[in-house]
Amino acid sequence: MSEFRKDPLHNRWVLIVPTRGKRPNVFFNEVKSDEKKSKENCPFCEGNENMTPPEIDSFRNKGKVDKPGWTVRVFPNKYPALNREITIDLQKNKRRNKVGGYGFHEVIAETPSHNKDIYNMTREEIVLVLKMYRKRHRVLKEKKNIKSVFIFKNHGRAAGASLSHSHSQILALPIVPPFIEEEMRIIKRAKTCVYCSLLKKAFSEKRMLSENSEFVVFAPYASEYPYQLLVLPRKHQPFFEETEDEQLILLANLIKEIFGKYKNLLGEIPFNCFFNLPSIKEGHWNIQITPKLTIPAGFEKGTGIYINPVPPEIAVTELKKV
Amino acid sequence: MSEFRKDPLHNRWVLIVPTRGKRPNVFFNEVKSDEKKSKENCPFCEGNENMTPPEIDSFRNKGKVDKPGWTVRVFPNKYPALNREITIDLQKNKRRNKVGGYGFHEVIAETPSHNKDIYNMTREEIVLVLKMYRKRHRVLKEKKNIKSVFIFKNHGRAAGASLSHSHSQILALPIVPPFIEEEMRIIKRAKTCVYCSLLKKAFSEKRMLSENSEFVVFAPYASEYPYQLLVLPRKHQPFFEETEDEQLILLANLIKEIFGKYKNLLGEIPFNCFFNLPSIKEGHWNIQITPKLTIPAGFEKGTGIYINPVPPEIAVTELKKV
Repeated sequence: MSEFRKDPLHNRWVLIVPTRGKRPNVFFNEVKSDEKKSKENCPFCEGNENMTPPEIDSFRNKGKVDKPGWTVRVFPNKYPALNREITIDLQKNKRRNKVGGYGFHEVIAETPSHNKDIYNMTREEIVLVLKMYRKRHRVLKEKKNIKSVFIFKNHGRAAGASLSHSHSQILALPIVPPFIEEEMRIIKRAKTCVYCSLLKKAFSEKRMLSENSEFVVFAPYASEYPYQLLVLPRKHQPFFEETEDEQLILLANLIKEIFGKYKNLLGEIPFNCFFNLPSIKEGHWNIQITPKLTIPAGFEKGTGIYINPVPPEIAVTELKKV
Repeated sequence: MSEFRKDPLHNRWVLIVPTRGKRPNVFFNEVKSDEKKSKENCPFCEGNENMTPPEIDSFRNKGKVDKPGWTVRVFPNKYPALNREITIDLQKNKRRNKVGGYGFHEVIAETPSHNKDIYNMTREEIVLVLKMYRKRHRVLKEKKNIKSVFIFKNHGRAAGASLSHSHSQILALPIVPPFIEEEMRIIKRAKTCVYCSLLKKAFSEKRMLSENSEFVVFAPYASEYPYQLLVLPRKHQPFFEETEDEQLILLANLIKEIFGKYKNLLGEIPFNCFFNLPSIKEGHWNIQITPKLTIPAGFEKGTGIYINPVPPEIAVTELKKV
């Protein structure tokens, strides 16, 4: 049974998930062995729908639930970090240091094909994935006792992806994660939108990589990771779930451009990507993309300070050239 | 020129170090190639003293500075993250979002031998390393404009060690890192020592792994990493630099025991280890050991919540058996 536990010395939660409690070295070997996985034994491939838990949602051209014919498919994580069966009472103990591991943990197979991923997907394919994020976000945020919804994607073994078939994950949590809580505090205190100010600064400080009528993408001033990028709606838009279809098409354009540039400059690098969704009207939703090129170690773990070998200004200059 | 930059949305600093700004993939290849390094071309080996910057300090049985005969040797990091030549004025701007990368970055070669490391060093060899930590800490904390000293060790490529020869690093910083600042705030607010309470709880909740007359070692309640351990002076002792020689011998005993247990249960696993040294009289210095067995990914980066697949109670039970 999983549970959230709070560190008494920091405003930090951890999530203990003993159902995943195989020996870590076994876990590592499994990850390695995935390289050998092909269409025949990949649970996320079209035709292998019986290898996953039953489908929750899908976009499809033909076929029935749990059968081939889908373009994007959603199902519960087979090894979930959170469990909808766990009962919690959030009112019971406000100053609590433990919360049951209640929640939802879904996997989104982004494509039926084993050989497609963000580096070679079409704009239309990316739009479908974004639409499914929006759809699932709308559903999950309404669930009982859910305080936040977190959408993310790991690409490549070095970035923590345990299966190579292109996929994303969504977790619906019974707590607001510390990073988002902290950000919400700062956003509420500020008189104008902090992200709108970041956008202006990125322009004047030459950290802007690209833009279109709806979105901008820039390297944050205090980038923790080399070649880190932030994708932001140009206009102040608090909630991701309120985005229009037209916006998602323009977002997909920018995503294709970003990963094209990464590929040209650095190759098909491993990365993590997540939606930053402070759910307050003062918020301004955004997407963070953090390439996994360095190994955070003792210094980062103990201080909270990340060492970044590539200044964001240089990263943007290099990415602009390709 | 390196600099600290503050993220306006979180109380987080990053350290931008452009002198390290080779292409990250080049960096990775370098790390890989170290596997082939042997006594002949390892800069930390006895006899290769001319491959490092000039020695700062050493314990030695014979020989002169920068010559063989040492047991523990300290020199500046060849690729420093901080630079003593940078001028900063900490008074100038209190609400600053940038601080020059001033400071000291030293490497401690823990042994003259390429084949020794924490898994096979003798107690006496470990004591010498601990004495050197204490000595360098005493020196560095007195330097002008230094606000904190951070001692850490990365072991194994997966844990970010770029050279395999057993070594530690010390950074003397012009700022107090966010994790330590946050901890100091909580410690000051508390009426009794938070760490002394943790110790009591670890006993009652069966997370205590081992103890002697001076130290205890236990798995923290909210362990972020599988098999994470915390080594704590049994009596309330604020400052590491005030430890007695006799204490360091007992500490070395416990360190040998810990890594013997890791080796028996999990093999010679990669890990990070760091000294947690809040420099206030209410503090209680300690050592954190975090095995590197999982890959923090998009969820951890975006939420600040770590998923730990091994409950600390289970970790202790398993480690006790071996």
